[in-house]
Amino acid sequence: MIAVDWGTTRLRAWLVDGSGAVLDRVTGDDGIMAVPPGGFPAVFRRHVGAWLDRWPDAPVVMAGMVGSRNGWVEAPYLRCPVAIDALAGGFAAVDAGGGRRAAIVPGLTARDAAGAPDVMRGEETKIAGCGVSDGLVVMPGTHSKWARIEAGRIAGFSTFMTGDFFGALKDHTILGKLAEEPADPAGFARGLDAARRPGGLTHVAFSARTLVLMGELPPAQVGPYLSGLLIGTEIDAGLAGAGAAAAIALVADGVFAQSYTEALASRGRACRLIDPEDAVVAGLRRLAAV
Amino acid sequence: MIAVDWGTTRLRAWLVDGSGAVLDRVTGDDGIMAVPPGGFPAVFRRHVGAWLDRWPDAPVVMAGMVGSRNGWVEAPYLRCPVAIDALAGGFAAVDAGGGRRAAIVPGLTARDAAGAPDVMRGEETKIAGCGVSDGLVVMPGTHSKWARIEAGRIAGFSTFMTGDFFGALKDHTILGKLAEEPADPAGFARGLDAARRPGGLTHVAFSARTLVLMGELPPAQVGPYLSGLLIGTEIDAGLAGAGAAAAIALVADGVFAQSYTEALASRGRACRLIDPEDAVVAGLRRLAAV
Repeated sequence: MIAVDWGTTRLRAWLVDGSGAVLDRVTGDDGIMAVPPGGFPAVFRRHVGAWLDRWPDAPVVMAGMVGSRNGWVEAPYLRCPVAIDALAGGFAAVDAGGGRRAAIVPGLTARDAAGAPDVMRGEETKIAGCGVSDGLVVMPGTHSKWARIEAGRIAGFSTFMTGDFFGALKDHTILGKLAEEPADPAGFARGLDAARRPGGLTHVAFSARTLVLMGELPPAQVGPYLSGLLIGTEIDAGLAGAGAAAAIALVADGVFAQSYTEALASRGRACRLIDPEDAVVAGLRRLAAV
Repeated sequence: MIAVDWGTTRLRAWLVDGSGAVLDRVTGDDGIMAVPPGGFPAVFRRHVGAWLDRWPDAPVVMAGMVGSRNGWVEAPYLRCPVAIDALAGGFAAVDAGGGRRAAIVPGLTARDAAGAPDVMRGEETKIAGCGVSDGLVVMPGTHSKWARIEAGRIAGFSTFMTGDFFGALKDHTILGKLAEEPADPAGFARGLDAARRPGGLTHVAFSARTLVLMGELPPAQVGPYLSGLLIGTEIDAGLAGAGAAAAIALVADGVFAQSYTEALASRGRACRLIDPEDAVVAGLRRLAAV
């Protein structure tokens, strides 16, 4: 099959054989924001045209913002709770050129207890590739997603704007003014502790400044402290919505894998680490086979 | 007396007679950030030299960042709890030219139950001018301050980065992308309600986007919604640290007075409104008389 993750800023595609082995891969900067009106088929063929011609019977399945209102075609959101395999029932179809059909995985919406909506697009496919039938799937990032899986169904999920807040607060509030580089990672654990203090984020975050003014936090620890505070806040809220015994799958690599593993451990929780690329490919493969 | 509020971006001074009436006033953009090294006496005389010469016996008292490490001279922080009138015991003295002495009101530090520090500089003088001996003094702004006054003492206080967060989140995260101007103020009350939802700010703030995507929040309401969410978060945390019966003095004018009065009313709380300029002048006058 041809598996594609086409997001806002990037396109990634994998050629996958029947056993799930990745035979070839391409990566491009042609995120959907960079595609001109009507340009999706041409951009798509530029990246994977050789595969399409060589493997005329290979199913093509795509996930990510390519299925959004600003994408190739809108794959309308499905509503949680939803069985993971039911995502295949929401596929949107496009013509990838010469009548070749390609499917786009739909995103998901969820409502919290107060009726407030949440959305994801792309992460549902990672969930499908995690092999989790009961437990939490945590996907850190600019907008982290926490999904609750119950008996093979995606029961609901919550978004936390952790990465987006971090950039805005560090670079566009008074908090970053005292920060020094290179960062001292020891501030991270202190930020994780600070997340437990009362008063809420707009209060506690100010301690990233006052602790420095008081000589109690080295300026090189400000960035990691703020990161720990935001990730700790996310973890505590995410865990509050789940049972104490829920198994946790963490879909992350690199610095996210490290910091979220440390953050979860600070709350006494272990996790199973899953590579994000592996999760996307496995999810697309699973849904293609439904 | 000559009363001065010299902050980071602005200098304001008042000529006040023995009855407390303001006889004259000046305002300048020469905040302490704009003063060159060693330049404080000259900038000061440029603004109020005529008063100094005309009233050689008038006491001169200043509040604000002029007493910070980057100001004219550092007036070291006093620690809460502290009697309001004890602020005068922490005056730092400077020579305003020709031997004319001027006093600078010290800032305050406080520690919360977890030992985390907080700081204010300038707001302590507004507190002194409020005439509150028991209750809460709420001073909205970029960094809002909530002070708890008990039997004429400033027992403690908390900072909330409400205004600073608002600017950073609206202009430097995904949340502002869908906002439209002119703003529709009806979003404010909805944001106040949203502040009560569980999950914490990094989660709930995302609803400023998802509600628009779902067609449930008009884009013109995004800015006021975000403002209501942040102010509601501040109000709930500030009230949580105080008794249900505590009297509330709100030191604010203009849009702050309006939005915080509405926010407090949404939680069933009334407040006494105090003009910030009146509070500063009254506070400087009170401390000058100690």
